[in-house]
Amino acid sequence: MSDRSAILDIIKKEASFNLISHMLPDGDSIGSLLGMGKSLMLAGKNVKMYTPGHIPRKYSFLEGAELVNNEIIIEDQEITTIVLDSSDPDRLGIFKDAVMKSKTIINIDHHVTNQLFGTLNHVDSNASATGEIVYGILEDMDLEINEGIAEALYVAITTDTGSFKYDNTTPLTHQVVAELLRFGLSPGNLSQKIFDERPLSFYILLREALSSLEMYEDHAISVMTISKDIRERSGASTDELEGIVNYTRNIEGVELGILFYVESENEVKIGFRSKRLDVSVLAGKLNGGGHAKAAGCRMQGDFESVKARVMGEAFKMLHELQA
Amino acid sequence: MSDRSAILDIIKKEASFNLISHMLPDGDSIGSLLGMGKSLMLAGKNVKMYTPGHIPRKYSFLEGAELVNNEIIIEDQEITTIVLDSSDPDRLGIFKDAVMKSKTIINIDHHVTNQLFGTLNHVDSNASATGEIVYGILEDMDLEINEGIAEALYVAITTDTGSFKYDNTTPLTHQVVAELLRFGLSPGNLSQKIFDERPLSFYILLREALSSLEMYEDHAISVMTISKDIRERSGASTDELEGIVNYTRNIEGVELGILFYVESENEVKIGFRSKRLDVSVLAGKLNGGGHAKAAGCRMQGDFESVKARVMGEAFKMLHELQA
Repeated sequence: MSDRSAILDIIKKEASFNLISHMLPDGDSIGSLLGMGKSLMLAGKNVKMYTPGHIPRKYSFLEGAELVNNEIIIEDQEITTIVLDSSDPDRLGIFKDAVMKSKTIINIDHHVTNQLFGTLNHVDSNASATGEIVYGILEDMDLEINEGIAEALYVAITTDTGSFKYDNTTPLTHQVVAELLRFGLSPGNLSQKIFDERPLSFYILLREALSSLEMYEDHAISVMTISKDIRERSGASTDELEGIVNYTRNIEGVELGILFYVESENEVKIGFRSKRLDVSVLAGKLNGGGHAKAAGCRMQGDFESVKARVMGEAFKMLHELQA
Repeated sequence: MSDRSAILDIIKKEASFNLISHMLPDGDSIGSLLGMGKSLMLAGKNVKMYTPGHIPRKYSFLEGAELVNNEIIIEDQEITTIVLDSSDPDRLGIFKDAVMKSKTIINIDHHVTNQLFGTLNHVDSNASATGEIVYGILEDMDLEINEGIAEALYVAITTDTGSFKYDNTTPLTHQVVAELLRFGLSPGNLSQKIFDERPLSFYILLREALSSLEMYEDHAISVMTISKDIRERSGASTDELEGIVNYTRNIEGVELGILFYVESENEVKIGFRSKRLDVSVLAGKLNGGGHAKAAGCRMQGDFESVKARVMGEAFKMLHELQA
């Protein structure tokens, strides 16, 4: 879905813009916001940037991060709002209502699930990241890119592709990044900040998770278990469970990795990871959902009975694969 | 140093080649060997491929890996030998003498320390990987690249750049990879094989290493300790210590990460990692060596006195940084 040329006309013509990206900010939402926002400012536009939620500390080094508002209410509705990387207006949180009343809503995104809620929509699900689309727009419009803008767009793209490891990485992705690096970026410094550094609490939690590791079915299934109490004692936030569950899959021979997070005596959150199996089917059977290689669900009941139910489905799925 | 055009002439003219790359084969040595070897075969050349040492299991999926010899002695000396990714003839192990007697030695490499031992040398230390140089040669000579060859060259480049995270990654690196992906590669499958999968024994060793974690100097120094006994009980090989030491650096706030590997009552191997400090200086003071961000040394003595000596130097270096 692309109203691209109409969008380019409006960006050229208008003098003032609000720019916004989604809640629970990530590298692509922040990078595409700052990349586009800073470039429009350099072109003399009047730009305000918004994001519902705090920018994670690891992205706060990006030039212009201090200009992003996350509390100030949007008042001006006679304005064009550019919404970046947001599949659904609900992802705009406290800013949703004000954004939806804008004179014109320009919706720029790469999620295949985008609801095309804009007055004009430019949604390209072949793009690895919204940052990749923003780069194309800046290039086509001859808008300025400097080192800070290039860093923001690099962060956007490298985050959403897992440093070019995921299958959403295309030849165009690498071509765009080749151009961005010409602005003098250090992939070493940026990657260290984004990927490799985690707080000490994460590693304490990882130690506990590895201590709980169980292997089943000739090492084809790995299981880690963390209780709320253990997580709290490690000092890790629930966000960090996301990093832990990936470890279940990274063991050689494992086809299905499972992380049980025991939230309370009566509630367990379960994460699934796989290499070839479609774990969204497994999660679906347990009233959860997700993607083919990363899915999850939440179940009521004591840990032992939840685990028995999940492992039963897991064994069944594995045997179907092996049949 | 580049005799590039003379090298291209010989490759065009000659009918038979021996190709060889260095001992302790890695992604770049194997990928550039197979990429060039398979392409020359498709051009109707008579090619034999050699590597001193076994190809690690994670690279054995590459097309043509089964054609690489690691034992058969090279007899024909009236031949042109192309040496890939090898800074020094000593790195050719059991094949060194036969290679050095070849009619013509073509030396293609990217190591800045290359000793230019070839009859003709094409050494480009700006290239991220020897695979990047090989791609340029195949392109210039209009030699065929198919999916298998593209996979080999992709593996070469992604291994030596840590999936495009290291500072040796250049705009040209990304341009080359953009072209390679057009042959239908799956960055997802390849990266999972190369980077993310490790044997169970590695994770058991990681658990032990994390259990030994100590933090010093307001979390600026992290220390892990592994004894030979603990490593052996985990089932991990000494190769896997290389993966463990990187974890010392990846903790937020850490400037200097140290891994002590206690080999015996009287010998300790020490690995250093850093973000900004030049740890090759630290290792040098202790009669070791390495790179700015990754270095190491080996010390005689009981663990407690070795540790005291190393920590003394480490504190001194950190205080100089903070001064």
